[in-house]
Amino acid sequence: MHFTSEQRLDDGVLEREFTLGEIPGILWTPGSASTSAPAPLILLSPPPLGLRTVYPRLAARALHCAADGFATATIELPGSGDRPRWPAAEQAVADLRRAMRAGEPVGDEIIDALILPLVERAVPEWQAALDALLSLPEIGGPVGYSGGVISIGTRLAVVEPRLSAAVLFAGSFIPRAMFEEARRVTIPLHVLLQWDDEGNDRQAALDLFDAFGSKEKTLNANMGGHTGVPRFAGDAAGQFFNRHLK
Amino acid sequence: MHFTSEQRLDDGVLEREFTLGEIPGILWTPGSASTSAPAPLILLSPPPLGLRTVYPRLAARALHCAADGFATATIELPGSGDRPRWPAAEQAVADLRRAMRAGEPVGDEIIDALILPLVERAVPEWQAALDALLSLPEIGGPVGYSGGVISIGTRLAVVEPRLSAAVLFAGSFIPRAMFEEARRVTIPLHVLLQWDDEGNDRQAALDLFDAFGSKEKTLNANMGGHTGVPRFAGDAAGQFFNRHLK
Repeated sequence: MHFTSEQRLDDGVLEREFTLGEIPGILWTPGSASTSAPAPLILLSPPPLGLRTVYPRLAARALHCAADGFATATIELPGSGDRPRWPAAEQAVADLRRAMRAGEPVGDEIIDALILPLVERAVPEWQAALDALLSLPEIGGPVGYSGGVISIGTRLAVVEPRLSAAVLFAGSFIPRAMFEEARRVTIPLHVLLQWDDEGNDRQAALDLFDAFGSKEKTLNANMGGHTGVPRFAGDAAGQFFNRHLK
Repeated sequence: MHFTSEQRLDDGVLEREFTLGEIPGILWTPGSASTSAPAPLILLSPPPLGLRTVYPRLAARALHCAADGFATATIELPGSGDRPRWPAAEQAVADLRRAMRAGEPVGDEIIDALILPLVERAVPEWQAALDALLSLPEIGGPVGYSGGVISIGTRLAVVEPRLSAAVLFAGSFIPRAMFEEARRVTIPLHVLLQWDDEGNDRQAALDLFDAFGSKEKTLNANMGGHTGVPRFAGDAAGQFFNRHLK
């Protein structure tokens, strides 16, 4: 992990860009982190749109989390931003667009081709990022996850024992295999669902919520489209982390 | 409205029992209410189990609300506690118990007979209580509703323009007619659903949530049975009122 730049944001929050091998990322630490105990960490997993595109949203959440005493970090997803695409992913995106333009249902083959290789590639990268982040003296545990592609969060919650709690956003296609995998998740979950999300299958999201094996799980569903998560829903997600990571 | 007793609870909260005609009720006002501006009001509509039975739960919520500056009030539902039953209601309860004991689905006729007359009788009583409560100098607006039988809250939200926001608990049978009525609700809603509620039809609850016409509505679903609403879900409902009644 190599830091490549740093700047101070509001409230003394330190923003540092880094690279982890080929993968770019950003770490935000609260202004108090250097002088006090190591900060608990929240992994902010982005949607697959490129970090540059989603930076304003991520930075706003990072500042919010820092006010609660949390460090946050993100890395670029495989195939997003400047990271290399792979042919099968390009094909899956093209197939998805064609199906949606034609008004056809998006078949399981397309969903699997779109999501499963992304999960396979992303999860080990997040685990490597976690190794690097937890080796920093200013970062401690426990670790939370807040993320964009719900299948990545689901898999990470199954395989990564250092994760204590997760906020998942039910706003992306869900491969059938993930419903079975979801039963093996046991950490506390807070699942956000936008009731009128254009590109989301609401019933699949409800089925996935039902499938999670966690004893404590909350579904927080609100009106509006994919990007319309209301501010108070973000606040509720913050309170969830305050309950579980402190 | 005649006050019949009064006592001071924790934090100086004043609890007064009253009667409204034949109907017993309880009013809780914050310790600060006499010295400051009139308090906003939350109607705490009980489940149909009798006020004496549910008093501990209601009083706990009243104290919580008082800490946020709210007055709260409840009245006994028709046919609950010491209030007279009516033969058709007794019959509906007997039919329901028989169906549930036999493991049969609870038919629409039973649900209609159980709920619709209760709604017809209860809603005008809550409106009369609201008239009386708002005439007290220590009570002001806006007015919220937090309730037990979701069909009563739905009807009240449709017919009572003084209601500004409602927390509804999706834990009782829902007559088919209420789905259509729900489309006419426009106030902000916060709907609590216990995912594993033994006596509740989860799909009906989701359908009712979908039907509400409100632009702002949140579904807050949590694990556990009918009476297992987690404390943090109660806190989230409190924050909803803080956003909408202040």
